[in-house]
Amino acid sequence: MRSNGLLSKRLHPLLVGALLVLAQVQAHADPLASWNDGPAKQAIVDFVKATTTTGSPDFVPPAERIATFDQDGTLWVEHPMYSQVMYVLESVPRLVKAKPELAKESPYSTVLELLKGDKAAVEKLTLPDLEKLAMATLTGMSVDTFSAEAKRWLAEAKDPRWKKPYTELTYLPMQEVLKYLRANAYKTYIVTGGGQDFVRQYSDKVYGIPPEQVVGSATQAKYGYDKDGKPMLTKEPKLLVNDNDAGKPEAIHLMIGQQPRMAVGNSTGDQQMLEYTKAGAGKRLSMLILHDDAKREYAYGPAQKLPDTKVGTFTQALYDEARKDGWVVVSMKDDWKRIFAFE
Amino acid sequence: MRSNGLLSKRLHPLLVGALLVLAQVQAHADPLASWNDGPAKQAIVDFVKATTTTGSPDFVPPAERIATFDQDGTLWVEHPMYSQVMYVLESVPRLVKAKPELAKESPYSTVLELLKGDKAAVEKLTLPDLEKLAMATLTGMSVDTFSAEAKRWLAEAKDPRWKKPYTELTYLPMQEVLKYLRANAYKTYIVTGGGQDFVRQYSDKVYGIPPEQVVGSATQAKYGYDKDGKPMLTKEPKLLVNDNDAGKPEAIHLMIGQQPRMAVGNSTGDQQMLEYTKAGAGKRLSMLILHDDAKREYAYGPAQKLPDTKVGTFTQALYDEARKDGWVVVSMKDDWKRIFAFE
Repeated sequence: MRSNGLLSKRLHPLLVGALLVLAQVQAHADPLASWNDGPAKQAIVDFVKATTTTGSPDFVPPAERIATFDQDGTLWVEHPMYSQVMYVLESVPRLVKAKPELAKESPYSTVLELLKGDKAAVEKLTLPDLEKLAMATLTGMSVDTFSAEAKRWLAEAKDPRWKKPYTELTYLPMQEVLKYLRANAYKTYIVTGGGQDFVRQYSDKVYGIPPEQVVGSATQAKYGYDKDGKPMLTKEPKLLVNDNDAGKPEAIHLMIGQQPRMAVGNSTGDQQMLEYTKAGAGKRLSMLILHDDAKREYAYGPAQKLPDTKVGTFTQALYDEARKDGWVVVSMKDDWKRIFAFE
Repeated sequence: MRSNGLLSKRLHPLLVGALLVLAQVQAHADPLASWNDGPAKQAIVDFVKATTTTGSPDFVPPAERIATFDQDGTLWVEHPMYSQVMYVLESVPRLVKAKPELAKESPYSTVLELLKGDKAAVEKLTLPDLEKLAMATLTGMSVDTFSAEAKRWLAEAKDPRWKKPYTELTYLPMQEVLKYLRANAYKTYIVTGGGQDFVRQYSDKVYGIPPEQVVGSATQAKYGYDKDGKPMLTKEPKLLVNDNDAGKPEAIHLMIGQQPRMAVGNSTGDQQMLEYTKAGAGKRLSMLILHDDAKREYAYGPAQKLPDTKVGTFTQALYDEARKDGWVVVSMKDDWKRIFAFE
């Protein structure tokens, strides 16, 4: 038989061989390539193998494969300030344009000053200030109007350090974990203290997680009709779900109705979700991301004598509970070969 | 070549031919075989073809294929009384056994009398009575205890007319619609005024709908620890989501975050869900099941001069809105060839 060369319909036998080798390499490619070898990476691989291999004593049917992830500080950067808080602050000028009398009223006046200067100074705002600003900028409009405003901001806003859209500041090793779990029939959920309506604007594009798999803090949406009688939902200034601390397992029960097999977080706000996950029968994996890499990202705790912070606090008590209860603590510095896809 | 007969590894050519014909028949089998030909069946088929055929002007990407179904009276029998109300009533003796002082206290005493006699007499209980009974029997215990009690009742309880478990009283034509939609990459949700925690006990087994795709009325689950320090969730007597009327589109936004492409209901409690669904851009299908078959199931409205009822009320106003806005009204009598799988 005569070979017709690479351009003919019939592939050259050498090329066929090369393609086979390539396919085998891809089949065995490391799904966690951005992780250094070590106990954290091994724990993830062991968990997935144990729960998805037919005949394994820890086998979990696909319908029960639920994995939940905190977002800020777990899937993407949360310092110097949560991106949704930046959205709230940067929405104040638009608010003041619509209601000029607010310009001289606190906390709006404080925010206008801050936006002219040092962004890290937002920590000076009190929690009640932030709650007031959040209600003013996140509610009081239709769900569709909010969605359009949030999407526009996400397309334009940039992180002050990397000068990139916030949506690019996701951790590559965690994106790999999400994909690896989904390739093994796990349903991946975001369970965030951030606003559910806000995170749903980008979760599918950024993480491949559809809106119905985003669980977050939620205000009441109120059904009604616009002036033409068309149905609409309005965002009301009433908190319905506070998806922090004990609110996380409570919201998981409300929105998912199954105890997760795996959960990942990075701060005290995730403690109860990790406890709840680990308390289930059979093999479970609870995991915490420790921000200990001041050079490539940020370093904060105060666990393990890292600098203290109000944004994504990881206390020594949480660290001790993790060690005691067999949760995995991931060192960004030691366990992650790469942090961002753009590096 | 010599044929080795049917038992050999090589199939007899005649058998191969028969299998091919069978495969073709199955490929063309009617997915809605329990539906009579008519406008309702045609509307479902047209909707699915229009939204799932590549190149169709109404094509919907798989991630946006969301269909929501009311349960009581839409997917299964709701007369003479919602099955969950029967659960609440039949749980009263267990409650009284634990707290004997309740036996002489209204409404518990009324229920004890009722359970000895005519079950249809439950309509005599007032709505506040039922709410009190519901809170007493559906809350105040751990999520796990409730789950075990509900599962035991579901396995034992029987409908008074067909003498079958409630979980067998599902409508075969609607089971076919659920399967047909899922075969076309639709995600099917239950959106019920019934208790979310209750329906989740059987939704997967009965409808192939997993817990996370059940949206229902929900009480607060409170996170805490048992005496051994193990995490647990307790059902609190506090209503968090009232999934009826305007509460349905509100809960759909909370739990799914996408406007459904198709929705089916059977009573005034579904009005806003059907309006909300039909108001979305592109092709949408809103549908109502009319119980007009006194012989094979029940007949009630009061729409179309059918007998009035407090359970699953379908008013003439709802019927008129459906006709005006292009919703499909399904006649159980005319559109359904079979009603139950056991017929």
